[in-house]
Amino acid sequence: MNDVPTLNPAIVLVRPQLGENIGKAARAMLNFGLTDLRLVAPRDGWPNPDAGPAASGADEVLANARVYATVQEAVADCRHIYATTVRKRDLWKPVVTPEAAAVAMRARGFQQAVLFGAERSGLETEEVAIAQDILTVPVNPAFTSLNLAQAVLLVAYEWHKAADTTPAVVTDYEPPADHATLEGLIVQVDAALDDAGYYHVPSRVAAAKRTLRNLLTKPGYNGGEIRTLRGMVHAIVAGRRGNRPRD
Amino acid sequence: MNDVPTLNPAIVLVRPQLGENIGKAARAMLNFGLTDLRLVAPRDGWPNPDAGPAASGADEVLANARVYATVQEAVADCRHIYATTVRKRDLWKPVVTPEAAAVAMRARGFQQAVLFGAERSGLETEEVAIAQDILTVPVNPAFTSLNLAQAVLLVAYEWHKAADTTPAVVTDYEPPADHATLEGLIVQVDAALDDAGYYHVPSRVAAAKRTLRNLLTKPGYNGGEIRTLRGMVHAIVAGRRGNRPRD
Repeated sequence: MNDVPTLNPAIVLVRPQLGENIGKAARAMLNFGLTDLRLVAPRDGWPNPDAGPAASGADEVLANARVYATVQEAVADCRHIYATTVRKRDLWKPVVTPEAAAVAMRARGFQQAVLFGAERSGLETEEVAIAQDILTVPVNPAFTSLNLAQAVLLVAYEWHKAADTTPAVVTDYEPPADHATLEGLIVQVDAALDDAGYYHVPSRVAAAKRTLRNLLTKPGYNGGEIRTLRGMVHAIVAGRRGNRPRD
Repeated sequence: MNDVPTLNPAIVLVRPQLGENIGKAARAMLNFGLTDLRLVAPRDGWPNPDAGPAASGADEVLANARVYATVQEAVADCRHIYATTVRKRDLWKPVVTPEAAAVAMRARGFQQAVLFGAERSGLETEEVAIAQDILTVPVNPAFTSLNLAQAVLLVAYEWHKAADTTPAVVTDYEPPADHATLEGLIVQVDAALDDAGYYHVPSRVAAAKRTLRNLLTKPGYNGGEIRTLRGMVHAIVAGRRGNRPRD
């Protein structure tokens, strides 16, 4: 996250129908650090008893949600507004991906909003006109039915990701063992194989030893793993020799 | 999308509890082009009557879902396996983001799988051990409760995005008008202001004209917009002159 907190964009649900979906949207928001939920003319009024259970603990988002009669009132303090729609409604506005919107919103830093339409009908053309940009999630063209909370989730996810410093790959466990340790394992297995008569065709010994070395080199085992493997090899060798402990 | 189709990764739900969540996961998969759903020991058996309605049309994914008794059987044909978990279970595996996993899976092109645990309990440590990598969605550390279908959605979204060619910003509408067209608007508005007596302080005329030019230059209006604006200016000027059409 940035040291200086960016004003989190408002998530504006326009005429949402089901309280359950409002709750799920709140949960998706809080999963990714968004808390400013605004409701425009929710069909069943507000508060809605179905929202809380669906929010699964994102109660603070619901408790702080504000209700407005119109989109214009809901975004009165916002200086850049996105309208989320899968359909191209207005050919005179840029159409951006959630990722591009997130990066742009992070760069601006002033109050912004993302509008989401009702579950079935989406945003009215007049509501899309209030926005500067259209936000469209690229989906499988053969199956575009993205539900309300999922759309909110993806926008919130990209918002979080745009400032997230999690490395793409974390490998903060024990690094590969040093070569002397690996060599110790190779020597031990080699001796066990030799002892067992594995190298019985003289012309193939060199190739077999090279193969053994490659097999044990490939995984990049760390010190703990090599200690465990050496213990296992020792147990098998000892067992074969008839030294297995009695049950 | 690639010309040569990549084998889509299998989405493996391990001991899922609610049919509704299986249906939502199927919907999230199909939204982003994934169709290979595998269920390990679903709590309420399979098929589950609650799955279909929640899939909202992703019926083909449910119809083709395969059921297995164990994770091992479900991933028998998979050559690289991710275990999705928010908790660090095994310090000896790389932990990757959904984006990094998607990019890596696209690059491999052979059969792969992503495991998701049960709604509350997640994956068992023994099941995580089956995977090569751990997949963790970076979330708000203060609110990490991501539900099953949401986790599937984010993995599927990144998979789709890794090969998606949608431009970040699409502005395929009419480009800004050429300068002669813009100049025509400026001249018209300038004349209307002059006619209305707006330039009545001689010392400020040059600055006022410059401001007018800047105001009309900033938006990058296209030809259609400028035609509309010229019509509006004409209407206001005509109306002020008493030429307004009678009601």
